[in-house]
Amino acid sequence: MSKRALPITREQNFPDWYQAVVRDGDMAETSPVRGCMIIKPWGWGVWERIQAELDTRIKDTGHDNCYFPLFIPLSFIAKEAEHVEGFAKEMAVVTHHRLMNKDGKLVVDPDAKLEEPLIVRPTSETIIGDAFQRWIKSYRDLPLLINQWANVVRWEMRTRLFLRTAEFLWQEGHTAHADRDDAMAETLKMLEVYREFSENILAMPVIAGEKPANERFPGADNTYSIEAMMQDGKALQAGTSHYLGTHFAQAQNIQFQNQQGQLTHCHTTSWGVSTRLIGGVIMTHGDDDGLRLPPKIAPRQIVIVPMLRDKPEDKELLDYCGGIEKELKAAGIRVLVDAKPTKSAEKRWNWVRRGAPVIVEVGGRDASGGNVTYMRRDALRDGDKIASHTSPRDAFVAGAAALLDEIQARLYAEAKARLDGNIISNITTFSGLEDYFGAAAGDDEGGVFKGWARVAWSKPEGEKLEAIADRLKALTIRNAPMVQDKVQGACLFTRRTRKEYVLIARAY
Amino acid sequence: MSKRALPITREQNFPDWYQAVVRDGDMAETSPVRGCMIIKPWGWGVWERIQAELDTRIKDTGHDNCYFPLFIPLSFIAKEAEHVEGFAKEMAVVTHHRLMNKDGKLVVDPDAKLEEPLIVRPTSETIIGDAFQRWIKSYRDLPLLINQWANVVRWEMRTRLFLRTAEFLWQEGHTAHADRDDAMAETLKMLEVYREFSENILAMPVIAGEKPANERFPGADNTYSIEAMMQDGKALQAGTSHYLGTHFAQAQNIQFQNQQGQLTHCHTTSWGVSTRLIGGVIMTHGDDDGLRLPPKIAPRQIVIVPMLRDKPEDKELLDYCGGIEKELKAAGIRVLVDAKPTKSAEKRWNWVRRGAPVIVEVGGRDASGGNVTYMRRDALRDGDKIASHTSPRDAFVAGAAALLDEIQARLYAEAKARLDGNIISNITTFSGLEDYFGAAAGDDEGGVFKGWARVAWSKPEGEKLEAIADRLKALTIRNAPMVQDKVQGACLFTRRTRKEYVLIARAY
Repeated sequence: MSKRALPITREQNFPDWYQAVVRDGDMAETSPVRGCMIIKPWGWGVWERIQAELDTRIKDTGHDNCYFPLFIPLSFIAKEAEHVEGFAKEMAVVTHHRLMNKDGKLVVDPDAKLEEPLIVRPTSETIIGDAFQRWIKSYRDLPLLINQWANVVRWEMRTRLFLRTAEFLWQEGHTAHADRDDAMAETLKMLEVYREFSENILAMPVIAGEKPANERFPGADNTYSIEAMMQDGKALQAGTSHYLGTHFAQAQNIQFQNQQGQLTHCHTTSWGVSTRLIGGVIMTHGDDDGLRLPPKIAPRQIVIVPMLRDKPEDKELLDYCGGIEKELKAAGIRVLVDAKPTKSAEKRWNWVRRGAPVIVEVGGRDASGGNVTYMRRDALRDGDKIASHTSPRDAFVAGAAALLDEIQARLYAEAKARLDGNIISNITTFSGLEDYFGAAAGDDEGGVFKGWARVAWSKPEGEKLEAIADRLKALTIRNAPMVQDKVQGACLFTRRTRKEYVLIARAY
Repeated sequence: MSKRALPITREQNFPDWYQAVVRDGDMAETSPVRGCMIIKPWGWGVWERIQAELDTRIKDTGHDNCYFPLFIPLSFIAKEAEHVEGFAKEMAVVTHHRLMNKDGKLVVDPDAKLEEPLIVRPTSETIIGDAFQRWIKSYRDLPLLINQWANVVRWEMRTRLFLRTAEFLWQEGHTAHADRDDAMAETLKMLEVYREFSENILAMPVIAGEKPANERFPGADNTYSIEAMMQDGKALQAGTSHYLGTHFAQAQNIQFQNQQGQLTHCHTTSWGVSTRLIGGVIMTHGDDDGLRLPPKIAPRQIVIVPMLRDKPEDKELLDYCGGIEKELKAAGIRVLVDAKPTKSAEKRWNWVRRGAPVIVEVGGRDASGGNVTYMRRDALRDGDKIASHTSPRDAFVAGAAALLDEIQARLYAEAKARLDGNIISNITTFSGLEDYFGAAAGDDEGGVFKGWARVAWSKPEGEKLEAIADRLKALTIRNAPMVQDKVQGACLFTRRTRKEYVLIARAY
């Protein structure tokens, strides 16, 4: 086997491979604060691209950005808890507001205890709902369409960079509507925004659908998700959109006077995606040489590495690269000339691991011949060798935007083929499900690649559903796809009349 | 006196006027969480513009954005406290990580106490320094130029929207350098970025200079600021840039191997501006009709209000407005047609209070005549009357960008004249200072307009400086301007040889 840019392959150990991509791709690292990550410049650049693309879509669909407090009074959470069953209680609690010196040591000042503890927001339904209650008076104020970009904290026990961290960054949309129809239309509109964004920008194919009752957001009437298939076959919930009915409106007194003059509760929604998407991108597109970034979210789409030799000719080489850089920039391409004083081979491999879509290496011979030599990160190797291409510089510059489009399309097509080719739909019994997933079902760390199963489902709820969830162990029902074929056969679990298909998979 | 759009004038009560602008201009409101604000869509739109403009400048000067944890272990703060005197201890402290139900009530779970308390970051020198210590090995890694956009929390006792809040948003730059010269050059470069940004984008003239020793950031060798003059004559510190010497590097072991192979401490800097800038914009440009936004940071630069009459002709009017909107958008102008079903007079006054730079009102007669009628927010009134202008639509569209530039320039010129005209420089004795500021000096809430005093200064430090600060009471030394005239006369306080001029003022 040829040498790869990472010390470990996906096949050897997928979770360790993931950590290696995050680390060697300069995306993020663990911090001295339990469960909190440091997002490094390259990883942050990806998040900036995600924010910019998604923010445009959120605004284009009529939402305004705001900012609400980081802290939520305990009483707000308590009020929600009365109305909503089963919300997680693992939260960061602020109890004091001052430190003091005691015997030369810095300690928490016991006299500075807060009257009411403050919770670091795990999500903002309650604090935003409180504002809605003040802002909304009449049907004329509806719909109220708000979004915020923020950090949130959930005290997760087992964390993994990007995928599950105590602090993470996200956008959370919160909206209020006059009736169910309008709120449901909003819920599904944002689900569709997530699907389109995920497929067109992240090149990550997803299946949009409705979560079963046991996987709903606490307090939601309906929860929808987009689910992506990672390269180990596991599902990643990449975004959710909730129709909250009037539960939160009742808990928080969010009412409006309707056109008939009656005071009525609003119907609310919420929806969000987070830095978890970056984990999804890594596990969708990464290979054994590191990350492969879709051009639309790559902080640098083309990186030019001049093969500097610490000689007077370097200046000529840098001028040549600078000329190409200038033209690519003018064409709206995010380009970088990496002129750092390190070896060019080292620089090349750094950019390979970071997943820059196109890496151009320019040596003296390229410059004098008016050429460039480049690698496509989506098709780095020809067998074991690096596949490098030589092109006249003008042709390369003229074709660069099209080349990036082609890379974006190819990464999507590759992931789409994986998703489409790995949903098995001929399982009709529970033992069939067990046979298919076999050892993989119980093995949370993956190992054996297994895709998803599409099975007939009668939509049981309550205790019946709980019993099924228990029986599934490490498997979970991901969602009931929005697009459904004609359903055949009885429900795999209840043998009752099937209502729809659901997808079953191991998941992150 | 004519009716104004705000219930209170600047002259009547400046602090109350400020609150009215923030509230009636839809900028922000207080939240149920003590000291934390809700930034509303219009206020957030201003912050987004500030972020975009400043972020470009931060990147253009070679800095990379990252993201570091919200929480800082108490031990990190304690280590800093050993090295740095006088840092504030008012911080939000997280002590627990779980809630629980007890007798039907939601309470903090006493079993979920953290081993080590976590501090909600008041600033990130310590947590970023810890990363620097890991990331920096050799002179080749320097300079390391990092920035982050984040929320921070300081437990302020007395808060005021935007100006001083427990949670606020900011950018904090943190850099490490091989030597003093390089670090000092960085410190001054970012001070200049702030000055240029403040003057050209916020239209807020400032004086850049060095803070006296007693106003330095704890641990800094030198602290520089930009200071702006508000309409009540008070100074607002609008941004700071610190040269930290090797204090933080020593506390945190940030070392590099220099070209001679010796292990050496880095010289570090930090610099930041915050949502406080928005308070500065309000108090620089607001008038008795509300906010006046410089076009470069206005979320909407031109707002078109069709004078709808709930009649069939409305459609024609909306089409006419839509046509203008489209052409302005194509010219890169942020434009909105406000077609909400409220009265057009109400809409007009809302946009006046919010400070949209140009407000266009289009009635049936305008449309049929191919005209527009517009108001300039920078020159809203002619005496007591509203000054409205009529123009052929094509000429208006063609001249819109130039009109916005003119408004930006006029707001700046107005503020610049105020600053330049209100720095008194003929005070040479302390009693002269007392006479000048008089009652205003002791009155933190303003009332009587007094500008700043420029006085000769011998740069006393230590106890002498403390004594002067005490004597000044509510007055403070703002900074010693970077640009200094030839100094004449003895130090106003010490009568010793003056080294420079400093500015003295009441301040926010």
